[in-house]
Amino acid sequence: MYVRDYTVPGRLQDSILYSIEAGGKRLRPILLLATAEAFGAPVGKGLTAAAALEMVHTYSLIHDDLPAMDDDDIRRGLPTNHKKFDEATAILAGDALLTMSTQLIAEDPSLEQEEKIFLIQELTKAAGPRGMVEGQMQDMLSEGKEISLESLEAIHKNKTGELLKYAIRAGAMLGKASEQSMQQMSEMAEALGLIFQIQDDILDVTGDAEVIGKPVGSDVVNDKSTYPGLLGLDGAKEQKNHYVKTAESALTEAGVEGTVLSQLIQYLSTRDH
Amino acid sequence: MYVRDYTVPGRLQDSILYSIEAGGKRLRPILLLATAEAFGAPVGKGLTAAAALEMVHTYSLIHDDLPAMDDDDIRRGLPTNHKKFDEATAILAGDALLTMSTQLIAEDPSLEQEEKIFLIQELTKAAGPRGMVEGQMQDMLSEGKEISLESLEAIHKNKTGELLKYAIRAGAMLGKASEQSMQQMSEMAEALGLIFQIQDDILDVTGDAEVIGKPVGSDVVNDKSTYPGLLGLDGAKEQKNHYVKTAESALTEAGVEGTVLSQLIQYLSTRDH
Repeated sequence: MYVRDYTVPGRLQDSILYSIEAGGKRLRPILLLATAEAFGAPVGKGLTAAAALEMVHTYSLIHDDLPAMDDDDIRRGLPTNHKKFDEATAILAGDALLTMSTQLIAEDPSLEQEEKIFLIQELTKAAGPRGMVEGQMQDMLSEGKEISLESLEAIHKNKTGELLKYAIRAGAMLGKASEQSMQQMSEMAEALGLIFQIQDDILDVTGDAEVIGKPVGSDVVNDKSTYPGLLGLDGAKEQKNHYVKTAESALTEAGVEGTVLSQLIQYLSTRDH
Repeated sequence: MYVRDYTVPGRLQDSILYSIEAGGKRLRPILLLATAEAFGAPVGKGLTAAAALEMVHTYSLIHDDLPAMDDDDIRRGLPTNHKKFDEATAILAGDALLTMSTQLIAEDPSLEQEEKIFLIQELTKAAGPRGMVEGQMQDMLSEGKEISLESLEAIHKNKTGELLKYAIRAGAMLGKASEQSMQQMSEMAEALGLIFQIQDDILDVTGDAEVIGKPVGSDVVNDKSTYPGLLGLDGAKEQKNHYVKTAESALTEAGVEGTVLSQLIQYLSTRDH
């Protein structure tokens, strides 16, 4: 709904809506809203923070799919943005989504000034060159190279972990979580990011392309380092279970165990797409 | 100086620094700081707003130069970012600069909360899909087509005018300009944007490639609509002089005539690069 308010009819709007409406799991906004709810934030308080997050995630997919980057033709079961439109339009659609993300938060009349600033600081830090963008750069530089488990985790922490952490921290802040709970939820978010990535890697080996909506085995084709590649399939599953325990303990310490967040941890560690 | 604080050493940082340090006229930050000074803002108050603006401008140049867009090899007398590095790195460097721009403002301890929010709102509005990004889309769609003077001005208003307006409005706001002065300075900024663009088009016909730092005649090669193309060279100069008068009147009405802003109008309308 926000996209139409912030764009004008035409090719750019069509291209942005195409990628936003392509769906996906909406995992990041759901995590943000579930965390806000767990900490008792008023309903609707996290809507722009969640939409901004989905915009940043969608922009990153559009740019990562470009021929100069991962060169993917299919995303969420549909042609990627540059296949449906063209490369120039896809680059601009990504740029537009990134720009709108902070605009949306800055213009939300239901947020306090200090909430807006917190959200923009955390979102840009997570998405920027000490977060997601650096992660994508490192991911590209590591293609075709043997890398250590430590390097692999550092890449994922930047590439996907930081935005998941924003989701959790933004939700907790909007629910006025204590400093200590914020810290525990950050730890939970870090574990969750690794669970997410390990399961992604496992699905690239064992998954069903039709259920996932993109080809499997592409990590091997692209010569990417993965958890199953480094630890074997059983080792990867074991590592994942370790992080599930870490995440659940953190929830308990922060006093939000038994909420929908526990179910999300279970879902993320067992999802089939 | 900000770039190093917000990035980590490596290829992405090198690529960002390469384009930021390539220089250029620094017109936008100078305009912002000159306007802030004209309205009596404390020295240093506009530094992050100005740096953020230059980051957005630089990101837009990096992305516009890409092969899928304007496909330029030379910028500011040096190889373009994707020629010096590669396309993937250039896309990410642009993304990083855009993300850092709002981060820089949000984290500036010398700005009030409401100043941060005003600056972020205006910068994202100017840069986004109702401003610069839409302008670039329309510019690409109009290549090879005959367009009216009205359409040409609409494209330039979005593509370059909105960011110049941000420069002027941000500076005036930091100097606590009145509502009425803000309105007059917005009109001045709109005229200035058109002066800038007309002179750009004129230089593409009459300029010296070595002084400009990029090839001349590229508008004709790329089949772009320009002021000299639509109005003839003399007609374009006349149109420019009309806007110079508009801009100078607005300065007088806002009570900041005779400041460095008057000199900047003169400089922009007569610059040779």
